[in-house]
Amino acid sequence: MTQPVPPAFAERHIGPGDAETARMLEVVGQPSLEALVDAAIPAGIHDPEALAIEAAPSEQAVIAELREIASHNTVVTSMIGLGYYGTHTPPVVKRNILENPAWYTAYTPYQPEISQGRLEALLNFQTVVSDLTGLEVANASMLDEGTAAAEAMTLMRRAAKAKDGAVLVLDEMLLPQTVGVIHTRARALGIECVTISLDDVDSADALSFAVDGKPVFGVIVQYPGKDGQVRDFRKVADAAHGLGALVTAAADLLGLTVLAEPASWGADVAVGSSQRFGVPMGFGGPHAGYMAVGQKLSRTMPGRLVGVSIDAEGKPAYRLALQTREQHIRREKATSNICTAQVLLAVMASMYAVWHGPVGLREIAVHAHSHAKALADALRAGGVDVTTTRFFDTITVSVPGKAREIAAKALEAGVNLCIVDDDTLSISTDETTVAEHVAAVCGAFGVDAPSEIPTVEPDFGDLARTSEYLTHPVFHAYRSETSMLRYLRRLADRDYALDRGMIPLGSCTMKLNATTEMEAITWPEFSALHPFAPSEQTQGIRDLAAQLSAWLVEITGYDEVSLQPNAGSQGELAGLMAIRGYHEANGDHERDVCLIPSSAHGTNAASAAMAGLKVVVVKSADDGSIDMDDLRAKIDKHGERLAAIMVTYPSTHGVYEDTITELCDLVHEAGGQVYVDGANMNALVGVARPGHFGGDASHLNLHKTFCIPHGGGGPGVGPVGVRRHLAPHLPNHPLAAEAGPESGVGPISAAPFGSASILPISWAYIRLMGGTGLTAATRMAVLNANYVAARLRDSYPVLYAGEGGLVAHECILDLRELTKISGVTVDDVAKRLVDYGFHAPTMSFPVAGTLMVEPTESEDAGELDRFCDAMIAIRAEIQDVIDGKVEVEKSVLRGAPHTAHCLAGDWDAEYDRMTAAYPAGVDPRAKYWPPVRRIDGAHGDRHLICSCPPPEAFEEE
Amino acid sequence: MTQPVPPAFAERHIGPGDAETARMLEVVGQPSLEALVDAAIPAGIHDPEALAIEAAPSEQAVIAELREIASHNTVVTSMIGLGYYGTHTPPVVKRNILENPAWYTAYTPYQPEISQGRLEALLNFQTVVSDLTGLEVANASMLDEGTAAAEAMTLMRRAAKAKDGAVLVLDEMLLPQTVGVIHTRARALGIECVTISLDDVDSADALSFAVDGKPVFGVIVQYPGKDGQVRDFRKVADAAHGLGALVTAAADLLGLTVLAEPASWGADVAVGSSQRFGVPMGFGGPHAGYMAVGQKLSRTMPGRLVGVSIDAEGKPAYRLALQTREQHIRREKATSNICTAQVLLAVMASMYAVWHGPVGLREIAVHAHSHAKALADALRAGGVDVTTTRFFDTITVSVPGKAREIAAKALEAGVNLCIVDDDTLSISTDETTVAEHVAAVCGAFGVDAPSEIPTVEPDFGDLARTSEYLTHPVFHAYRSETSMLRYLRRLADRDYALDRGMIPLGSCTMKLNATTEMEAITWPEFSALHPFAPSEQTQGIRDLAAQLSAWLVEITGYDEVSLQPNAGSQGELAGLMAIRGYHEANGDHERDVCLIPSSAHGTNAASAAMAGLKVVVVKSADDGSIDMDDLRAKIDKHGERLAAIMVTYPSTHGVYEDTITELCDLVHEAGGQVYVDGANMNALVGVARPGHFGGDASHLNLHKTFCIPHGGGGPGVGPVGVRRHLAPHLPNHPLAAEAGPESGVGPISAAPFGSASILPISWAYIRLMGGTGLTAATRMAVLNANYVAARLRDSYPVLYAGEGGLVAHECILDLRELTKISGVTVDDVAKRLVDYGFHAPTMSFPVAGTLMVEPTESEDAGELDRFCDAMIAIRAEIQDVIDGKVEVEKSVLRGAPHTAHCLAGDWDAEYDRMTAAYPAGVDPRAKYWPPVRRIDGAHGDRHLICSCPPPEAFEEE
Repeated sequence: MTQPVPPAFAERHIGPGDAETARMLEVVGQPSLEALVDAAIPAGIHDPEALAIEAAPSEQAVIAELREIASHNTVVTSMIGLGYYGTHTPPVVKRNILENPAWYTAYTPYQPEISQGRLEALLNFQTVVSDLTGLEVANASMLDEGTAAAEAMTLMRRAAKAKDGAVLVLDEMLLPQTVGVIHTRARALGIECVTISLDDVDSADALSFAVDGKPVFGVIVQYPGKDGQVRDFRKVADAAHGLGALVTAAADLLGLTVLAEPASWGADVAVGSSQRFGVPMGFGGPHAGYMAVGQKLSRTMPGRLVGVSIDAEGKPAYRLALQTREQHIRREKATSNICTAQVLLAVMASMYAVWHGPVGLREIAVHAHSHAKALADALRAGGVDVTTTRFFDTITVSVPGKAREIAAKALEAGVNLCIVDDDTLSISTDETTVAEHVAAVCGAFGVDAPSEIPTVEPDFGDLARTSEYLTHPVFHAYRSETSMLRYLRRLADRDYALDRGMIPLGSCTMKLNATTEMEAITWPEFSALHPFAPSEQTQGIRDLAAQLSAWLVEITGYDEVSLQPNAGSQGELAGLMAIRGYHEANGDHERDVCLIPSSAHGTNAASAAMAGLKVVVVKSADDGSIDMDDLRAKIDKHGERLAAIMVTYPSTHGVYEDTITELCDLVHEAGGQVYVDGANMNALVGVARPGHFGGDASHLNLHKTFCIPHGGGGPGVGPVGVRRHLAPHLPNHPLAAEAGPESGVGPISAAPFGSASILPISWAYIRLMGGTGLTAATRMAVLNANYVAARLRDSYPVLYAGEGGLVAHECILDLRELTKISGVTVDDVAKRLVDYGFHAPTMSFPVAGTLMVEPTESEDAGELDRFCDAMIAIRAEIQDVIDGKVEVEKSVLRGAPHTAHCLAGDWDAEYDRMTAAYPAGVDPRAKYWPPVRRIDGAHGDRHLICSCPPPEAFEEE
Repeated sequence: MTQPVPPAFAERHIGPGDAETARMLEVVGQPSLEALVDAAIPAGIHDPEALAIEAAPSEQAVIAELREIASHNTVVTSMIGLGYYGTHTPPVVKRNILENPAWYTAYTPYQPEISQGRLEALLNFQTVVSDLTGLEVANASMLDEGTAAAEAMTLMRRAAKAKDGAVLVLDEMLLPQTVGVIHTRARALGIECVTISLDDVDSADALSFAVDGKPVFGVIVQYPGKDGQVRDFRKVADAAHGLGALVTAAADLLGLTVLAEPASWGADVAVGSSQRFGVPMGFGGPHAGYMAVGQKLSRTMPGRLVGVSIDAEGKPAYRLALQTREQHIRREKATSNICTAQVLLAVMASMYAVWHGPVGLREIAVHAHSHAKALADALRAGGVDVTTTRFFDTITVSVPGKAREIAAKALEAGVNLCIVDDDTLSISTDETTVAEHVAAVCGAFGVDAPSEIPTVEPDFGDLARTSEYLTHPVFHAYRSETSMLRYLRRLADRDYALDRGMIPLGSCTMKLNATTEMEAITWPEFSALHPFAPSEQTQGIRDLAAQLSAWLVEITGYDEVSLQPNAGSQGELAGLMAIRGYHEANGDHERDVCLIPSSAHGTNAASAAMAGLKVVVVKSADDGSIDMDDLRAKIDKHGERLAAIMVTYPSTHGVYEDTITELCDLVHEAGGQVYVDGANMNALVGVARPGHFGGDASHLNLHKTFCIPHGGGGPGVGPVGVRRHLAPHLPNHPLAAEAGPESGVGPISAAPFGSASILPISWAYIRLMGGTGLTAATRMAVLNANYVAARLRDSYPVLYAGEGGLVAHECILDLRELTKISGVTVDDVAKRLVDYGFHAPTMSFPVAGTLMVEPTESEDAGELDRFCDAMIAIRAEIQDVIDGKVEVEKSVLRGAPHTAHCLAGDWDAEYDRMTAAYPAGVDPRAKYWPPVRRIDGAHGDRHLICSCPPPEAFEEE
């Protein structure tokens, strides 16, 4: 295709136009964008070689290419099961959440006052999980079932009585990918796993005997098993508890509507996936995993937890609870590196439950069961050996020597079955199964199809569900599409996302998520693929993944990329595991020290700990750069034990440090590997390649640099790129040979290609921009940050700067002196920004008492000026406190944010209402109103409530 | 497919569940829904025969069926032109307007305070049209280019000096469908049209000579002509003006970015289509037509006109201007029956202009021109006779005897050409044309393709555009997708649509527009079809139309349905024209009287006038029913001249009148025909069939009863159903034999199947509901209305009721007595409802001083109660005025609506802020804020401003 009409996509993606750019360059004092970047970036790392990536001629051309790629996928009915099932996304949810920027462009709800909508949706999710599992506290969310089970392993190890040398017992009926992920993690941590059949475990003695008498800290069971069998784990749980171990149930959430909840038979932890609650299979992800625990384990649970607290007026308000547990605080003492969750998918799953309610969910479960039952009956009637005796939705059949032949016949009729081995097949039903599918399977077996599918209540005996669930009114109120639509709109309206204004989050790169990039993810050719479908059916998505990997190789300068890690944290872990694998392959078993600068993101240290590495912190110098003397000292001290250093580049201080080359050399000379955290890749694309300036491995955050929307806190995608020598140690997958090297470290995520269904977003971004566009974006990101720094420097000191006083793509505004003399905190400024119509910058990271601003290239000068004007106006409000005109406690800063409702009531503030709600620059016709006043987080942590409060809580007196 | 899981779609479409229904029936005093309808509807018209329409098993099944139908359409590149062109809908506009319920479920902006977002978008549209045509006042919008030209005809006839016996001159280069629509309308009105070549008209004498010396009231020219030629109409305009005639230019809006604006060469009126501004061709529609006139014609212009006025605080605010011109006021004196516009499409077109700005639009025009030029050059170089000498985007070639063969070759290469006749082809380029298309066309002609397509500035000599356009900042501010996204969100947030709460508009049926129903309209297989594409390419959409017609036949009891009318008004006109055609075919030329009850919607009388019928009003009796004595008297009086009666059933009073059968008999006995206005069909579907109880013709409003969303005031679809004897007189189309009977009255709309691309919405609705679901919906609509009537009767008298005190699907609340004793008007109540979070019911129609409430079946009991509670609370506020506690001028009712901004300022109202903004029942977390206070409509009419005001107008002091 020839190029049609400009402006090309890059001009739409990048905020400032030519005139604006010229004006901004003048403010920054640089003659051109190229000169700016030349001045900001050390010559030693500046990589002048243009990116060899061709841009598509137009957005329409990219859609056409994606349609062509999609046509190389084949959508058939997958009855494979193994944790992935057909499901109908309610159309009202698809359109108004998955395709609605108000939901998908939101950030993680760290500013809870402007995140009440999605926090309510996540609280609904937690209530669903908690109700269905019977365990009091659920988080929102885990990345997938496999990693959730691995997290359960470490949780049980922390919490169980049995400790020294204790082993983990795995049910032989666990899903294979879950086993794989557990093994990967367990190996790194030196945990021994023993896989056994639990069928004969009826006492502590029997359990102990089965593990050769070793102490046991935990047991993980699959409920129902991968073979479909519903097993009674009461005796197993008693046995485990008798040995001082804890029990985790990996449970099917839909099955729990008809099966006794795990808590009722003794499970201490439940994990699993909420995929089949309306989230398409998507070739493996993203979906929201879940974890629930009993009350006494709640404070040791990993992941994000939404809780109820109160705002400054004493009204109920939601926020993330127990945030001090998070790895960004605990660093090397962290017990989990989970950071990004699967918020958008958890929201969808929760709304599926809201839409169907308990009666509807149960009907869907009975529907699936009835079809499985009809199929089993028909097969048995035809003489087929169905080995599953008590099942929910999955049956296993024994067909000696004929499994592949029958599966091939079923495929001819449009159905994928699960080939367990040459002699065995398993078949799963779901919400989408209809009589025609049952008939097709029967046909493949050569037996008569049932003439009808009677609705059959499952007969689980004393494993039948008897307790109530989803009794909260929210699961009963929205049964019509009209009422559901309005509920979704009301929630969305409470939140601030990129569709309202900029979200200038340092280190989180909240750039445009263009419509064209989002277009393909809801196409059935991408969304309806089972991750374990025969590879002939998934050529298109795998080609797309390969192309994306090749582009990321070009951009990073590495040699290989694995797309499997489904969050940045998982990418880090994968990269560090590759480094460990490399050292071990070299016989360097003693290399277990990982150097991490004090300015690093907490996830770094947590990932290192999870990779079994010892974290050693390297100090920062006064200018924010790494203290090279300390680095040399630490390298000397640890010598042969040095495994790696993890550095972020540009550093979390927002500066292109010129010591990076020397740093890489020192570490390499000492035999260590350099891990470059790719969080700040938005400052590097097209101007420097970590694989060229000394990095051995990096993860990328596709949800930062490459336009996958944050989704309110996930999904993320965290591919890891490595140099050639590390490539043999990248992740692989037990069920997909093409997903990684045979010599790999095992699976990092449950699905072979991680969050495959959203890869088209980043693919489209790169294809739309091309190398030139990507480089232009980086330059503009640097200009925008320097423009903000230049405009705000007189009001707030910019903490760090590099060459020529320039920052990279973000800048840190230092409020510490102002706080000292005025008492006004970064929190006050952040909340006051809400009144001005902004999301706050990153607070107190990487330096307490500061705000880190990353505008990104997508913001135009108008929005940057609006933000700078607001910050300058707030500075004047702080001055009034400094000058003694107002007490900080009575200031408009401390009173922020202000709701519309508070304006209507009695007013005893010392400032007036107009000052509170309409400070200078706020357009009354475009005012964003937070739904609550400032939230008291500590109150909620003292009174932990993590499921939906009763409606009465919100009643006005 | 077997039925998967309940609840079925009907349960999602219908608001109340079983428990709610039981409670509501109790309030209404009826034992069951069936009993309620039995009691409400006269036995004589009750049609117990179930609708023979099968429901699809699920929403997914309907999508699958639609995909199958879509697969029978073939999308190729259409270079046919003739008013329909390829265009790229900006993805950000598609997702955030066309696929966003906040835009598409909004109602006509009759309540301007809660419609400021789309009013701004429409003002942008008017500014685009006004700037590009050079004429001061543009409306928003016309239905299509053909009807816009027909409206221009009547406008010119009203406004021109030449009158008695004067003729209309038509440029022989007018688009054929435009000629068709003009002829249809002209015939009805007795206007003579003369089609001539204008090439030699260089003086008034020449023009007069060309029409045999008859007086001329108007000339309509095509600019550029259908052959592509750009003609200089200066002398034609002078000639016309010299004869006292006016000149209308049917002009290509994109062409006007490079061509001299019509006003500059003397056009008094400009009409056309805005389709190619980002609105898909959609097999002919819907698109927004346009009309612009000079200042002195502004008050006689038909259609809706957005203007700027001020609100109660003196701030600028938008509203519909000059509403007194509308047909609902002027009735039989109306000069146009236009009612529903094409708001959603006008909004899209305006946003296309906002997105591209003047520079971008011009680049697109130059792009199209460059490709046309390259093609013409290549053809000429190859020896082909290109007859067009000066062109914008369309060329005509002479290929004696070979036109069809060459077109067939082009089609093999994936391109549709326009076959003018056996010897002539025309070819149009557009925004989507690329070199490959040019090459394909060259290939079909057997000539060499150009090696490249140089960008060529058009050379139009003194017809080149020299004046500026789109200088307003709004066309320069949103160049990045991020800023555009936020602009669209800001506008949407100002408006109240169905996604916020109920819109209880009597006679306008604002029901659920389900996501599944909306899904298919953006599929390329429906949206990318040219209306004049070879019929082999459009089998799918025509099959769908045929199926939809058959279902409408089943529902209405008529024998034939035409889907061509693209609004209710056009359906009425088509129905009345069919009746006229029938009488004339019978030799009853004298039958020209149309009886219309005094309670009728104004459009009825306007349509009758446009069909050339004389309107005679029949009185209403005191109970609101038709005064049968007066009816008999009128029938007697007009005797042989009786052509028809137009009645609405149930009447606009919201009652099933039992006189309908007798009425039909009386009219039929007198030789007249019965036209049943289908506006209230939502009370009939599945319980009565107008074709069975006496109707001869009806139009249906698919945008009322059959779920096409109102789009903020359009698009509508107004199919007309008739009994067999009228069928030969339905609309047809000059370019599509399959669109209607050869004996038909001519085209009513420009496109053969009207607004074809949105027919899948109604198709999906009917298929999802099936006969049973449709009937259940009707019953629930009746229950909901009776529930509201029962709950509000003590507060506000319900004006009319039928048998047993029951209303049909709507009820009229009589405020006249309250107004008399309190001074509180329906306007006060309507605006106060905004404070409570509601859209007002229909005001003062059909009875001045009343509110008409139609809840529809999609509202659940919770929303109905919220509304009733608000109305009861307002009644108490009125009581305070009656009791003398507050003066009406100082009451919260008169102060309504209240903005958030007004709460923040000084407060001198006698009521407090909480009372103003948070009356009982308003959830502070779900409060809707109007962006302006009450708007002074008269102020704006005195100072008519119909294009964008400068940004300074909105500045806060």
